[in-house]
Amino acid sequence: MSIAATPEPPYYAVIFSSVRTKINDSYSETAQKMEELAKKQPGFLGIESARDGLGITVSYWRDLESIRNWKMQLDHEKAQEMGRDIWYQSYKTRIAKVERDYGFERETDI
Amino acid sequence: MSIAATPEPPYYAVIFSSVRTKINDSYSETAQKMEELAKKQPGFLGIESARDGLGITVSYWRDLESIRNWKMQLDHEKAQEMGRDIWYQSYKTRIAKVERDYGFERETDI
Repeated sequence: MSIAATPEPPYYAVIFSSVRTKINDSYSETAQKMEELAKKQPGFLGIESARDGLGITVSYWRDLESIRNWKMQLDHEKAQEMGRDIWYQSYKTRIAKVERDYGFERETDI
Repeated sequence: MSIAATPEPPYYAVIFSSVRTKINDSYSETAQKMEELAKKQPGFLGIESARDGLGITVSYWRDLESIRNWKMQLDHEKAQEMGRDIWYQSYKTRIAKVERDYGFERETDI
């Protein structure tokens, strides 16, 4: 997982913060599948993810319509339902418009 | 670390995605100190953080002025400089306006 190479703002970010239950039944496989599926959606720009206790996944999108379509994608809807049924203790989704970004990249590895 | 209890949108998110170098000199202490310091700034609303390889820290703020003031806070400026000098291989900061949020909380632990 690396830093997403997103285009010039404005674009949208979906910040998904979550705490897992202890139930793992096909969670990792489904999370992997959903990431692959998201990448194929119109308007997808990138994804970043990390978990240590708290999980944070930020996906980047061209516009609100792309986000809406991805939310309603059938396999994704099923995964969301499984999330509420067994995988997540709690979660919060935030839809945010990226107005500005800047970065840093080191010339050589240290 | 848990999901931040942010107020009703709109508010702002600073999404800081980073890849660390192998150099740890006082990184953890400084990160901890910066988190404590951020919490004391005017307009601070919450913070969420996770790292496994990629690090993602999302801090939430009332408005752009609060973000600007925090970016220019003197100890924070020094930490940012150390970040570019030794701690980070690369990073990206995205300033985003949270327009909508929704969540889920399980009644009982499973």
